[in-house]
Amino acid sequence: MSNFGFTDLRLVKPYDIAFREARSAVRSRYILEQAQVCQTVAEAVSDVTLVVGTTALGHRDLHAPLYRLEPAAELLRERMAQSPVALLFGSEKFGLSNEHMSHCHWLLRIPTRQEHGSMNLGQAVAICLYELRRDAAEGAHRFAAAPLVSAGDSERLTALLREALHLSGYIQERTAVSGELKLRRLVRRLGLPASDAEAWLGMLRQILWKLKHNEHPEA
Amino acid sequence: MSNFGFTDLRLVKPYDIAFREARSAVRSRYILEQAQVCQTVAEAVSDVTLVVGTTALGHRDLHAPLYRLEPAAELLRERMAQSPVALLFGSEKFGLSNEHMSHCHWLLRIPTRQEHGSMNLGQAVAICLYELRRDAAEGAHRFAAAPLVSAGDSERLTALLREALHLSGYIQERTAVSGELKLRRLVRRLGLPASDAEAWLGMLRQILWKLKHNEHPEA
Repeated sequence: MSNFGFTDLRLVKPYDIAFREARSAVRSRYILEQAQVCQTVAEAVSDVTLVVGTTALGHRDLHAPLYRLEPAAELLRERMAQSPVALLFGSEKFGLSNEHMSHCHWLLRIPTRQEHGSMNLGQAVAICLYELRRDAAEGAHRFAAAPLVSAGDSERLTALLREALHLSGYIQERTAVSGELKLRRLVRRLGLPASDAEAWLGMLRQILWKLKHNEHPEA
Repeated sequence: MSNFGFTDLRLVKPYDIAFREARSAVRSRYILEQAQVCQTVAEAVSDVTLVVGTTALGHRDLHAPLYRLEPAAELLRERMAQSPVALLFGSEKFGLSNEHMSHCHWLLRIPTRQEHGSMNLGQAVAICLYELRRDAAEGAHRFAAAPLVSAGDSERLTALLREALHLSGYIQERTAVSGELKLRRLVRRLGLPASDAEAWLGMLRQILWKLKHNEHPEA
C-alpha cells in the first residue's frame, strides 16, 4: 500500500498476533497505526460508494459481475476520482465468503493460470494496487456521473427492506439467510444516486411503520 | 511464478532454511523442486541471451539503461518469444549489488512512490510476472453493462410503490400529483437491471398485499 500511495487500510477482525507483528514494518508503519479495525464488512465499507471484491475464479456461482483486473482498474480509477471506493480482500486461506461478496457491487480477478488461481494475499494486493496506479496519469478526464449511494446507506436500505419483507411474509424464516444475501445483492445492483438515498429511506420507514402499526392495532 | 505460468527458477546461494520451508508450499512445490541452485550470478544466467535486473530507483549511479516496468515488459515479451531471458532480483534486504548489476543488459523498476521505492521481494516478483503476462489487447475490451429495466416495468414498479405509499400515509391526497411525478423520477433514477425487475415487483406486490390485508382485516 505504501509503495503505491494507498493509506486507508481497514481490517475486519484481524488476527491479533499477525497484526501486531506487521506493525513493526518500518516504512509502512504509519498505515498500520492508523488502520481502522472493524467487526463487520458492513462497518468497514459504510462510507464508500463502490465495493469491489477480489476472487480467484472459482466454480461457485458468484451472483455478481466479474471483471479481469485490467478493465476493473479502469472502472475503479474513474470512480476513485469522484468518491471513495473499497477493494475487499478475503483471508489468505478462505478468500471471500458468500456473505462478504454480498457486500460487493462487483468482483475482480487477477488473470492467473487457470490451474493455479489462488494467490498469496500480499502479492494479490500488490498487483491490484500496482494496476490501479499503473497509468493513473494517463487517465482521460470525463464528465462526472452523479455520485452513488454509500455502502452504509445501501445497508440501511437493505435492513429496512428486509424488515418490511419479513412483516409482509415475503421472506420466510427458513430461507432468511439466503434471502438476506439475495436482498443485499439486489440493492447493491441498483445504481442509486446518493442524493436520492434519504427519499428512499423515508419511504421505506413509512411503509414499515404502517406494517408494524397494522400488525399490532392494539398498541 | 506458478500463478503466472513461469517455471524456471534459479537461486544464487539461497538461504537454506527459508528455501527448505518454501518447498512445503503445496501448489508451487514443483517449481522449487526443480529449481537450479547456483553459486554465482554468472552461472545462473549462463544460457540466457538477455539479463534484466530489477531495482528500486536509488541514488547510486546505475551504469545501465533503466526502464519502467511497463515498457520493459514489452521489450521482454519480444525477446522471450525468441530466446530465454532472465529477470534478476536481489535479496530482500540489499537488492542487487553493483557486481550483480554488471551482469545485466539493462534494468527495470516498478513505478512506486518515490518516497517508498523498496518493495517486498515476493510482491515485486509477482508484479513483474503479472505485467509480463498481462495482455494489453485483451484488457482493452470492457464488459458490457447489464441491460436496464424497460420503461414499462419501471412504470409498473412506480404504480405499486405509489399505492404502498398511499396506504402507509407517505403520500397525502393534496400532494398526490407532485408526489407521483417525484416518485417516477426516483424510480427512473435507479439503475435497475432488467433481470432484477421481477424480484422487485414481487417484493412490492407482497408488501402491498400485506398493507391491504391489514387495512381491512374483516375482508
